[in-house]
Amino acid sequence: MTQAVRHDSMRARNLGVVLAEVRRSGPITRAALAEITGLTKTTVSKMVGDLLEAGMVTESGALRDGERGRPGTAVGLSGHRVAALGLEINVDYLSVCVVDLTLSVRLRCAQAVDNQAASPVETLSHLQELAHRAVDEARAQGLTIAGAALAVPGPVDDGLLHTAPNLGWHDVRVGDLLDFPVTVENEANLAALGELWFGSGTDDFLHVSGEIGIGAGLVVGGALFRGARGLAGELGHVIVSPDGPPCRCGGRGCLEQYAGQEALLRAAGLGGVPELVERLRAGEASALEACERAGHALGVALTSAIHLMDPATVVLGGIFAPLFPWIHGPAHETMNARLARMRRAVPELTVSRLGGDAATLGAAGQVIHRIVADPWTHVATSRTAAGPR
Amino acid sequence: MTQAVRHDSMRARNLGVVLAEVRRSGPITRAALAEITGLTKTTVSKMVGDLLEAGMVTESGALRDGERGRPGTAVGLSGHRVAALGLEINVDYLSVCVVDLTLSVRLRCAQAVDNQAASPVETLSHLQELAHRAVDEARAQGLTIAGAALAVPGPVDDGLLHTAPNLGWHDVRVGDLLDFPVTVENEANLAALGELWFGSGTDDFLHVSGEIGIGAGLVVGGALFRGARGLAGELGHVIVSPDGPPCRCGGRGCLEQYAGQEALLRAAGLGGVPELVERLRAGEASALEACERAGHALGVALTSAIHLMDPATVVLGGIFAPLFPWIHGPAHETMNARLARMRRAVPELTVSRLGGDAATLGAAGQVIHRIVADPWTHVATSRTAAGPR
Repeated sequence: MTQAVRHDSMRARNLGVVLAEVRRSGPITRAALAEITGLTKTTVSKMVGDLLEAGMVTESGALRDGERGRPGTAVGLSGHRVAALGLEINVDYLSVCVVDLTLSVRLRCAQAVDNQAASPVETLSHLQELAHRAVDEARAQGLTIAGAALAVPGPVDDGLLHTAPNLGWHDVRVGDLLDFPVTVENEANLAALGELWFGSGTDDFLHVSGEIGIGAGLVVGGALFRGARGLAGELGHVIVSPDGPPCRCGGRGCLEQYAGQEALLRAAGLGGVPELVERLRAGEASALEACERAGHALGVALTSAIHLMDPATVVLGGIFAPLFPWIHGPAHETMNARLARMRRAVPELTVSRLGGDAATLGAAGQVIHRIVADPWTHVATSRTAAGPR
Repeated sequence: MTQAVRHDSMRARNLGVVLAEVRRSGPITRAALAEITGLTKTTVSKMVGDLLEAGMVTESGALRDGERGRPGTAVGLSGHRVAALGLEINVDYLSVCVVDLTLSVRLRCAQAVDNQAASPVETLSHLQELAHRAVDEARAQGLTIAGAALAVPGPVDDGLLHTAPNLGWHDVRVGDLLDFPVTVENEANLAALGELWFGSGTDDFLHVSGEIGIGAGLVVGGALFRGARGLAGELGHVIVSPDGPPCRCGGRGCLEQYAGQEALLRAAGLGGVPELVERLRAGEASALEACERAGHALGVALTSAIHLMDPATVVLGGIFAPLFPWIHGPAHETMNARLARMRRAVPELTVSRLGGDAATLGAAGQVIHRIVADPWTHVATSRTAAGPR
């Protein structure tokens, strides 16, 4: 290692330490930062200078420094400059959001689009338009987009969307179809991260995304469990009954065939989730039966998932959020009958408050978390382009 | 933090750094250790002195120090003093092993015992006898047992065996029934760690322990995945068919009811696994059918497990090792039909070479890994008692 490289890596480390402390401790003086981090005051001042220049922190008025009684200027995380773009392609909608460095949501926008009828090129070109509009909006608010992430409804391996059975897409390098750099990740993984950062506020849960497909993301100790290849959490293809109806994945009796959006609406003889909710409220038998059946199937699949993955709680999102009052009972009943003897506590079923936005928010949040974890890379590249212009 | 505490924690850290480097780089001079770790030669010499005194490292003859050409004494991990005791209680056997600091197995012993007919007190007293005999053997070889770990066939939460349905035990504080300290852990978790440290040599796999119960342990990036409460990996209770035969866990159609040792032998009309293997070799129809059925059920449960946990490979151990030639085909066929479209590669099914010893070895290995990760605690307590005497 040359001296220069060693010096840079030390500086990168210190920059990360200072920013992490600013984030954790809220507005804080340079003197307090030095004391907590063990860095010299000179180093802290230099790091704060770099962060101020990059617009990642901001100075507020004089703050009394508790112990010594000297007044100092407080440094806090800034939501005024650095922001991230979150994007999602799902089977029947596109969505986009902008989140700033303090994780405040600055903009959200979703459009109903039938992507099943569209090619990847058409869908991505549509998404790109939405993205550019969001970036313009963000710029008008004084924000600079530091990076973008995209949620897609299928397993992603090293940037390649291997298959999205419900879109009919196979082996698509989604990022190559956009004119700005993005990281691409499975929708269910990002929805779980969205729930972690913007939702329930607990650190250990399995988040279930009910869409046309059903995915899940497990968060353990505040970190997403990804498996060996990032393909974990395909709850929709957990087998409910081995000889059940054929599934687009090639299997039979997968959860999606009982509790996915299309299966549910087909069973209820309806065209959309809002209509289904209306019928459920009116107590219509066929709608109630469809939810009962879906809830039991969800309970069977979750029983297997809980035995294998041991989540502390289960958070139901996507279409399971509006359907929660009708799905929750049969799912819980099935889980309780099968799990109670093996565990002291059967994981509670709760409902996500984020609904369809979870994955888009998770995508943007992931970009912010990467910047906060490694501000040096952001500072070093913030003069060159990152994200859409 | 007082100066003394700060000093001790620094020393603990440095001791760990030096031992980890000795372990990684094999016999190595003090000068090379100083260069690699960035510690001063004085500090390295002091740490090596502590480790020599504790019998954790050993000095070998002069070694030429590559770059500078100065001869130095090489320091290597020592297998001559520090050792760990691994123990296992399973439904139809007890086993014990002793492993030294270099992870060499110094002693193994298994006894067929019907623990279903015994109370926890009886079983633990029997195990204690075995343990004391093993410790005496180890002592005769000059080894000191630095700690012990015990594998049990059921979910363990903070030292409490919540339930072992196949033993009929509930809420047993197993460690309190022994006259020496042990850490207690689920058999399937420890078997996976045994496979990691003593078996196949890969870092990403799902290890399946086929016994009367069926458990699994997932290793990702060389670390055991434990879930939120350490209860992950209960593959035996993944649902194969929701209306299948009732299971001792309170559920129905669990994998254990199709592919567990008792279910398999019952289906084949036989009394033991060796007998079953004999009949399979002879091509007996009922034996072949029983394995075919078990293999398909295993394939269904593994399909769900792979969708949820994304292991790189699957290693079959326990009774599935001797039955591998007959189980492998139907399991693979089922997995392939259901997984191939969703993933670029269906995880390969391989066979463990450790068989029934995996959990016992994993238990001892875990003790050794804890000592190596934190040698300071071992050095500090090695004068007081640890492990059975």
